[in-house]
This record gives sequence, C-alpha cells and structure tokens, in this order.
Amino acid sequence: MAAALRVLGIDPGLTRCGVGVVDVASNRSATLVHVGVIRSDPGEPIERRLATIAAGIRAVIDEHEPSVVAVERVFSQHNRQSVMGTAQASGIALLIAGERGLAASTHTPTEVKAAVTGYGAADKRQVQTMVARILRLDALPQPADAADALALALCHAWRGGAAVSPAAGALTPAQRAWADAERLARR
Amino acid sequence: MAAALRVLGIDPGLTRCGVGVVDVASNRSATLVHVGVIRSDPGEPIERRLATIAAGIRAVIDEHEPSVVAVERVFSQHNRQSVMGTAQASGIALLIAGERGLAASTHTPTEVKAAVTGYGAADKRQVQTMVARILRLDALPQPADAADALALALCHAWRGGAAVSPAAGALTPAQRAWADAERLARR
Repeated sequence: MAAALRVLGIDPGLTRCGVGVVDVASNRSATLVHVGVIRSDPGEPIERRLATIAAGIRAVIDEHEPSVVAVERVFSQHNRQSVMGTAQASGIALLIAGERGLAASTHTPTEVKAAVTGYGAADKRQVQTMVARILRLDALPQPADAADALALALCHAWRGGAAVSPAAGALTPAQRAWADAERLARR
Repeated sequence: MAAALRVLGIDPGLTRCGVGVVDVASNRSATLVHVGVIRSDPGEPIERRLATIAAGIRAVIDEHEPSVVAVERVFSQHNRQSVMGTAQASGIALLIAGERGLAASTHTPTEVKAAVTGYGAADKRQVQTMVARILRLDALPQPADAADALALALCHAWRGGAAVSPAAGALTPAQRAWADAERLARR
C-alpha cells in the first residue's frame, strides 16, 4: 500500500462510543486497523462516564497513532436528553484531538452515509454492509456504532483525502468503493 | 468563618466560559474566592477552542482547589448551533471534574436563579445584583457569564450544602440571602 492516511473515526455516545481506525491509501483503498466500542455505565455519574470515554479514546490514539480524527457532527434532535450526552461525548472527542495536536473534523450522518453507500438516507444495515465490503471484512462490524465510526473515518479520508486525478474524479468515492467491492467479490 | 465548602461554578460556553469559586460556610454565608471568564477565539478550530477552555478550567482548579464542581445544565434550545457548543463545553467541564476525582453536579438556569434571587425567571441584572450582595462585592460581577458562574456555585452549596436546622429551614436560601443582604445594607 502507498503512504496511507490513518484516520480515527469516532461515533460519539455516552453509553456506546464507537471508535474505528482505518488506513486509507492515496488510491483510496482502505484497510481496517482497529474497531471497537467504548462503553460507560449509565448508573455512573456523568463526570465519571465522560472520564471513561476520554480514557478509552486516549488509549486508542496511544496505540494506533492516527494523524487525524473525524467525529460525527451532532444536531439538536427530538430526544433532548440523549442528544446532550452525545454532544458532550463529541466535545470530549474533539478536545482530545486538540490536546494531542491532531487535526479534527466533523461530518454529518448524511455526509457519512452518502460517502460510504452513495445514499444519504441509507439505513444502519446498508452502512454496515458497505463498510464490511470496503474493508474486506468477513463479518459485518458490530454494533452499529462501531460500523458508524469506521464509516466516519472512511468518509473523512475520501472527502478530504488525496488529490483525485480528473479521470478518477469521474467516480464518486462511493461508486469507486462499489466498483472495488464488486471487483473483489468476483475474485 | 466555619469550615467552608469551596465550590467551582462553571457557566459553560465556547466563546465565553464563566468560572466562579466561592467558599460557603455551614451558616450559608459565602465569600468570593475567584471569578473570571475563559475565552476562546471563534476563528479557531473547535478542537483548539475546547482545549483552550479545558486548560483554563484546569488552571482554576489547580490554583483554587475546589472540592466540588457545579455546571449549568444545558438544554436543547432554539439556537441549535450555539447549544451544541455549549453542550460540548459543559462536557469538558464535567470531564475535568471526573478526571480530578471531584464531585460534579448540574443545575438548571431556573434552579440557579431561584436559589440566588428567589425568582426562577429572574433576568441577568437581577442575578448579578444578588450575587454582588450575597458576596458583598463593590461592583456587579461582569460579564453576565461570570455572575452566572458564581450563582451556580452558590446554588450548589445552598441546595446540597450543610444540613439546615428546622428553624433555619423556614427560610429558603434566597430568602436568607435577601435577609442577610438587607441586614448588611443597613450597617
């Protein structure tokens, strides 16, 4: 693989915070480095839950040394209690990136789904399926938070990644991924 | 003053994060220890802004060694962009409390206003005025974020503070504060 960009994707959450690390080469092919979910106990006080999430994110950065962090952008939604915890967890993720001197960026769920499946309103199963194909995994990444974290990392690398030649630019990243996945499936 | 509880109040915000430290004695009298505002540059990336806020909060804790942290509870509101930044900053404040092993609690703006002014819908000026009276300050704490941080700290100490004797319990903390302030004003 050519010089790769190592991206840590974080799907922020208090109860389950998805973390996924991928290497994405300049030709846009991607390899799984790490995937997991950091959990915190809903029975614990919020300050300890956030400290648990922070410790988990720092451990992933220490072990895998990504050069950039991509975090899902949180919007105000119907479930107000839940969205505040999600926003707090996203703040922790961004803070840690800032403190480590890593570039950080946020992407909306629609951007992530569009980048990975070609369809901004894709459901969780479609995202899991495409992430597994793109990364040539034998099974779907579980739980969905873990798949979302990997999708975030892929989205970031593809959207902001290596310069695309005019010919290659004729394919969107998702189209390219489908083409790659189909080619691999035929082998 | 009898053994006092030292409380750090934090009014979370990205552009201006109010921080106030007060000592509250078992007789509920309160003394100003520190008040300030941590600012971050809106032109900076979010991850650096959060790191600036975190560094500022840590510096206050290092210098003044509070035993508890009170943070304003953030709700989903009309201004969605702003509330997400506020929620992220509140997550940072709670995280730092958790990492330092400090107890943390959150209070709603209504609870804070009611505790300090006796009126849950008090305006900023009323909060500033009462905070200045309670802490015997010569001037109103400025900006409003700083006054809110002090009000949060007072609210926390009074709501969760020392046991109140049955007789003393006949006065709410706000009523007591008014009585104290009026007595002081007559001196």
